[in-house]
Amino acid sequence: MTDSPIRFGIIGCADIARKVSRAILLAPNATLSAVASRSVDKAANFAKANGFPPEAKIYGSYESLLDDPDIDAVYMPLPTSLHLKWAVLTAQKKKHLLTEKPVALNVAEFDEILKACEENGVQIMDGTMWMHHPRTQKMKEFLDDKERFGQLKTVNSCFSFFTDPDFLKNDIRVKPDLDALGALGDEGWYCIRSILWAADYELPKTATALRGPVLNDAGVILECGASLQWEDGKTATFHCSFLQNLTMNITAIGTYGTLHLTDFVIPYQEHEASYIASAKPGFNDLVTGWTSLPSQHTVTADLPQEVCMVREFAKLVQNIKKNGAKPDKKWATISRKTQLVLDAVKASIGKGFEPVEIVN
Amino acid sequence: MTDSPIRFGIIGCADIARKVSRAILLAPNATLSAVASRSVDKAANFAKANGFPPEAKIYGSYESLLDDPDIDAVYMPLPTSLHLKWAVLTAQKKKHLLTEKPVALNVAEFDEILKACEENGVQIMDGTMWMHHPRTQKMKEFLDDKERFGQLKTVNSCFSFFTDPDFLKNDIRVKPDLDALGALGDEGWYCIRSILWAADYELPKTATALRGPVLNDAGVILECGASLQWEDGKTATFHCSFLQNLTMNITAIGTYGTLHLTDFVIPYQEHEASYIASAKPGFNDLVTGWTSLPSQHTVTADLPQEVCMVREFAKLVQNIKKNGAKPDKKWATISRKTQLVLDAVKASIGKGFEPVEIVN
Repeated sequence: MTDSPIRFGIIGCADIARKVSRAILLAPNATLSAVASRSVDKAANFAKANGFPPEAKIYGSYESLLDDPDIDAVYMPLPTSLHLKWAVLTAQKKKHLLTEKPVALNVAEFDEILKACEENGVQIMDGTMWMHHPRTQKMKEFLDDKERFGQLKTVNSCFSFFTDPDFLKNDIRVKPDLDALGALGDEGWYCIRSILWAADYELPKTATALRGPVLNDAGVILECGASLQWEDGKTATFHCSFLQNLTMNITAIGTYGTLHLTDFVIPYQEHEASYIASAKPGFNDLVTGWTSLPSQHTVTADLPQEVCMVREFAKLVQNIKKNGAKPDKKWATISRKTQLVLDAVKASIGKGFEPVEIVN
Repeated sequence: MTDSPIRFGIIGCADIARKVSRAILLAPNATLSAVASRSVDKAANFAKANGFPPEAKIYGSYESLLDDPDIDAVYMPLPTSLHLKWAVLTAQKKKHLLTEKPVALNVAEFDEILKACEENGVQIMDGTMWMHHPRTQKMKEFLDDKERFGQLKTVNSCFSFFTDPDFLKNDIRVKPDLDALGALGDEGWYCIRSILWAADYELPKTATALRGPVLNDAGVILECGASLQWEDGKTATFHCSFLQNLTMNITAIGTYGTLHLTDFVIPYQEHEASYIASAKPGFNDLVTGWTSLPSQHTVTADLPQEVCMVREFAKLVQNIKKNGAKPDKKWATISRKTQLVLDAVKASIGKGFEPVEIVN
């Protein structure tokens, strides 16, 4: 017997919800059951434009969707400042929660959300899609290869995109009452996650913001960077910005190997994605060229990364629903560490670029 | 009438001198005339092993080479701590100076060397070979393209290679009395240069060392990083290390474009070299892939980059010798700025990672 698909409701019609709607439609173990907006017309239009099945329900309020007994899980693409309220309510209504990132404005809020999820036995996962791409697993195998990659020494990660004056004036990501974490929340989240991912989720001991962040008049971060330091000497840097060209790089360097890719958040193409691995390269005798050149590895993606994410989330929910399993803690733990580092970077900016200790 | 080739003498038989000997042999306007070592046998063996012409002179002391009236120019691959003495003497002996980098232990020493060169009317150039690769010019054209690259916003540069226990114990680059600047001088020099190059040699206003540098027991830097800040908001970071895999990356991000390469110091292959340029990329409608993918550009090198360097240096010397021109100041200015930033990074490490102002 096949498990029945997980019935998703979406609260909020943000742009990103279009992609995730499609992902829910494409995921083999999920189905699109409802969408809610503060305006029922907006919800109806969204459902129509995004291929919702005819039986999908249209709600004019988030509450009514959360009260629907035929919804198993909620995808929440709301502005970060609304997460606490709606995530907690989602959990209290016993709906599993796939939430956009950043999960919360800070780790205190995160912990309130997590507590609500734990108390209500619901799964939580954040929407960091690239984690679920099959390429990510392949790259991790390289990082874990003690012979070819060795021990991780440093990571540099960058995520930026250039925004126009309208974005910088009106987008929710520059508004202190909406996505108050700005570029740090929208882009830096991915950089921090990539660094933690490379470091096997070992938390750095300190985060030190780099000098020269750009904040708007309301104090929202438009561009910043940080360096992270681990107990064992590992280091990392990242840079995120709304003010410069679209760039998505990870370079992770070990004692013997280097991993490199330039489209980590959203692969250039949907059906395949590449990375560069360099293992124990050296120079020729006169040091006029390299021996053993870096090699490009391409990984086929049968499903887009956001579909893999929905499938993974729905699988965990199915396991809870069908087998009475406990919610999986892995994703919550990873999310929380990301939020902890993000908090520390923000605090370091506030403290004039002093290092801020990261305490789990 | 063809200008006669510039007659080079080499003082010191360091490993790097093998590559530069070949470059002098291959350069159309240069010739290998002499080599000096503190041991005449070592010099003779070096000349033999590196294809010196039979008429080349072999000297058992640097002084005697500098006294040879048939030498126009000296290539100096000595440890950094010896540069001041021998560079000044080279200039006083009216020999033009192609010196290995870092030019000096600090900018005060640099200025003594520069003063000696200016007073004696001799050309100085440092041995930063990649500057002379035709790829470098092509990449600069992209960075200068206001339509495709826009305004430079940030640069990240990394140069590292993994060294063995013998290197870490015995190499001159870990000895405080020889190459006292360690990885910062040997590798960071290139990173700093790449950043200055991308920034049109505009000096940053401050340098802030990143936390977590690794120093050996004698205080020599084995690994470090820094962030640089410009008046106009530009920023840069770099990382250099003897303790991690061979990596040579530059990522320069402008408002509209991104330049990226992974072999900037020594191209993977001698006859051609590539870089990646991304100009005004965007996402498809659902943000599941990119539009206008980055493109790889390959530049053919008719001559190896170190030959281009020798040729450029010899051309400047020929212009002085034949036309009575003044020494070209461009390379000295670029060198000095590199040294200034290097000094500031070192000072910042010494000051507990406080930002250090860079004053020209």
